[in-house]
Amino acid sequence: MSNNSLLNQTHDPKLTSWVESANVSGGDFPIQNLPFAVFRRSDSAENFRGGVAIGDQILDLAAAKDSGVFSGVAQQAIEACAKEQLNDFMAMGKDVWSALRAALSQALATGSAAQNSLAGCLVAQADAEYALPCRIGDYTDFYTSIHHATSVGKKFRPDNPLLPNYKWVPIGYHGRSSSIEISGSDFKRPKGQTKAPTATEPSFGPCKRLDYELEVGIFLGKGNELGQPISIENAEDHVFGLCIFNDWSARDIQGWEYQPLGPFLSKNFASTISPWIVTTEALAPFKAQWTRDMNDPQPMPYLESEQNRASGSFDIQLQVSLETEKMRTANESAVKLSQSNFKDSYWTVAQMVAHHTVNGCNLQAGDMFGSGTQSGPEPEEAGSLLELSNAGSEPISLPNGETRTFLEDGDNVIMKAYCQKGGAVGIGFGFVEAKVLPAE
Amino acid sequence: MSNNSLLNQTHDPKLTSWVESANVSGGDFPIQNLPFAVFRRSDSAENFRGGVAIGDQILDLAAAKDSGVFSGVAQQAIEACAKEQLNDFMAMGKDVWSALRAALSQALATGSAAQNSLAGCLVAQADAEYALPCRIGDYTDFYTSIHHATSVGKKFRPDNPLLPNYKWVPIGYHGRSSSIEISGSDFKRPKGQTKAPTATEPSFGPCKRLDYELEVGIFLGKGNELGQPISIENAEDHVFGLCIFNDWSARDIQGWEYQPLGPFLSKNFASTISPWIVTTEALAPFKAQWTRDMNDPQPMPYLESEQNRASGSFDIQLQVSLETEKMRTANESAVKLSQSNFKDSYWTVAQMVAHHTVNGCNLQAGDMFGSGTQSGPEPEEAGSLLELSNAGSEPISLPNGETRTFLEDGDNVIMKAYCQKGGAVGIGFGFVEAKVLPAE
Repeated sequence: MSNNSLLNQTHDPKLTSWVESANVSGGDFPIQNLPFAVFRRSDSAENFRGGVAIGDQILDLAAAKDSGVFSGVAQQAIEACAKEQLNDFMAMGKDVWSALRAALSQALATGSAAQNSLAGCLVAQADAEYALPCRIGDYTDFYTSIHHATSVGKKFRPDNPLLPNYKWVPIGYHGRSSSIEISGSDFKRPKGQTKAPTATEPSFGPCKRLDYELEVGIFLGKGNELGQPISIENAEDHVFGLCIFNDWSARDIQGWEYQPLGPFLSKNFASTISPWIVTTEALAPFKAQWTRDMNDPQPMPYLESEQNRASGSFDIQLQVSLETEKMRTANESAVKLSQSNFKDSYWTVAQMVAHHTVNGCNLQAGDMFGSGTQSGPEPEEAGSLLELSNAGSEPISLPNGETRTFLEDGDNVIMKAYCQKGGAVGIGFGFVEAKVLPAE
Repeated sequence: MSNNSLLNQTHDPKLTSWVESANVSGGDFPIQNLPFAVFRRSDSAENFRGGVAIGDQILDLAAAKDSGVFSGVAQQAIEACAKEQLNDFMAMGKDVWSALRAALSQALATGSAAQNSLAGCLVAQADAEYALPCRIGDYTDFYTSIHHATSVGKKFRPDNPLLPNYKWVPIGYHGRSSSIEISGSDFKRPKGQTKAPTATEPSFGPCKRLDYELEVGIFLGKGNELGQPISIENAEDHVFGLCIFNDWSARDIQGWEYQPLGPFLSKNFASTISPWIVTTEALAPFKAQWTRDMNDPQPMPYLESEQNRASGSFDIQLQVSLETEKMRTANESAVKLSQSNFKDSYWTVAQMVAHHTVNGCNLQAGDMFGSGTQSGPEPEEAGSLLELSNAGSEPISLPNGETRTFLEDGDNVIMKAYCQKGGAVGIGFGFVEAKVLPAE
């Protein structure tokens, strides 16, 4: 299946919206995007409910439900979206998601007869606050950037940075769901056990090597029964959409605890996602070829398909910025630390789904995958401070004279993502941010 | 706090019940136990709801809710127990659990005026089927048996079996919630990538080294806010109760995938719990001293308390039996493979809770911990076939002439747990079992 067969009228670059702010060139939320979040008016006692971004507005789906504009499958979908969590909508599957997208696209398009009925269903994003888009039943973090795995591995094994399984197995591990929070949720620097290389005993205290990880979050839609793997051919049909994901990491706690069962307290104190889920369908114009170097092992059959080769990758530009306390006080802008692209991932989203279920493991609507830190092939494309500061040995200089090896209290980390390719109208993910508060 | 201060009238060894089967010596469910499950009549279309075991019966809490017997806090608690999942009841906290236990103990005691009203609320356990007792939000598996960690470590590092962090850190890692099933849920042998030590490349196929792990499951009740650690002094107040837990493991898949982020597909194809949660309060008579060898590192302050020393351990006898297809066909009984005791655990339940939250990680009502494989100090007390068969090199002989290194298709693994100590009336956990079905 080629890329083009995934495109339909909702991707038409000529489409514009009667919500004028959606037609501004380079904005995150043109009518070709239509991502989902759960929101309410800031500081209100309203129920949280589903919404769709259009320009600088949110189409309130609880209000739209009663607008009389929608019918049939689209109306059923909107009723599911009017709830406080999108799990029921996500579980309805690809055809329903697609029917709602088509209906929303028509209703929000310039000249739509629905404009009068829907104009009153808009809430300005500036007036909104967000909640997690769904109940995240299980969260799995992958490790799909070979550039990240190699540069982290080099610090431990300079001559043999990649473990022998890396090019065969889409490495992943289970994470903690309860501590995943929505953008803007500041968190305290974690405390824990650490052991300096030269120390004879571990000590206890606030983390001294706090880091971010620039990741893509992947939301599962329709699940599978226990014992019934999802084939790679069907894998993307189970993926509802993508967000931006910051998987905060306490490197010193991680170094002491992670053998032999993997990272634990070094990760589960906080993870932060962007509010907007950009659907797989909206991302269709930004699918890209996936290739595997001929000198590398080729994927096992359960990880291999023609479609995955043709369009398994997502061309999504990622970037991370830092706003320190000092910058905030001086009213200075955040500073870009690095950028990378999700298309450089060694494994695709479809391969993650097929691998995760090949043993029969069941996925459920609302489950989330992290892509793992997305570092690109160049050193300046590193997705963590661990890499950018060479494990803390080479401080980064910031324009205002500050330096960083790892994160300081008051640091606000901001991540953005944007798709821009060929003749398609570019779409954005908004942003995810959160601030490090001092340890208790 | 000594053990005795945890005891109250519900633990009185002289108490008997008007449900005569509860008074049979050595039974699992005397009136001193009163464990919780979620059940309905087998093969019925009834809603699942909470129940309490008494003798060979279940007190149906949805029916008891309308009996007029209970009032006040106990009635509020029973209303929460009448739902399809016990999360709301578990979230109500220790005082409410305790109030309901006191009321149930009175109502089920010999001579109770409630006998007439409640006799019609009993369902025979022989006529019941069970569901998971609650929605398990997050599942964490610990590694608290030093005997297991040592004997597994020996296979990799004969001279240095324990990693340096083991005696400092209650090692744990995140597991998969969605594939935790209730006793009796048979499952297919998983497929996956494995690599023989002598092979140059991995291969794909059904697991050849399928194992069980004899564990205790620990259910969290009242949770904590993100960023607010639970102190070791308060830790047990957050623990609702314990069950028996079989954490099935695909050793060959594990060996190839687990570096560097821990076990993943080798674990998440299936885990099985017993239906009955025995409450922390019911287990009070079986609390035991916890000691740490003076030659070992003593716990850091956040893992140390007087109460934990005095009564942090649980004296629970565990055993695992195997019923092969051949035994079943010949109508032969299952064969005991090993037994151990949870009191030999290197870390206590309170230490697990304090460690898990010391970085601010939030626990929620219905979360589950696995204790890790509970192997005792003697080789015959090993909690897995990996240990009993010396990693497959020494087949176990079964009385009917069969042998086992790892599990074969058709094998049914049965685990039981029982508490017996001093003058207390013994209480049991029932059992957990599940059968290995052939790979697809």
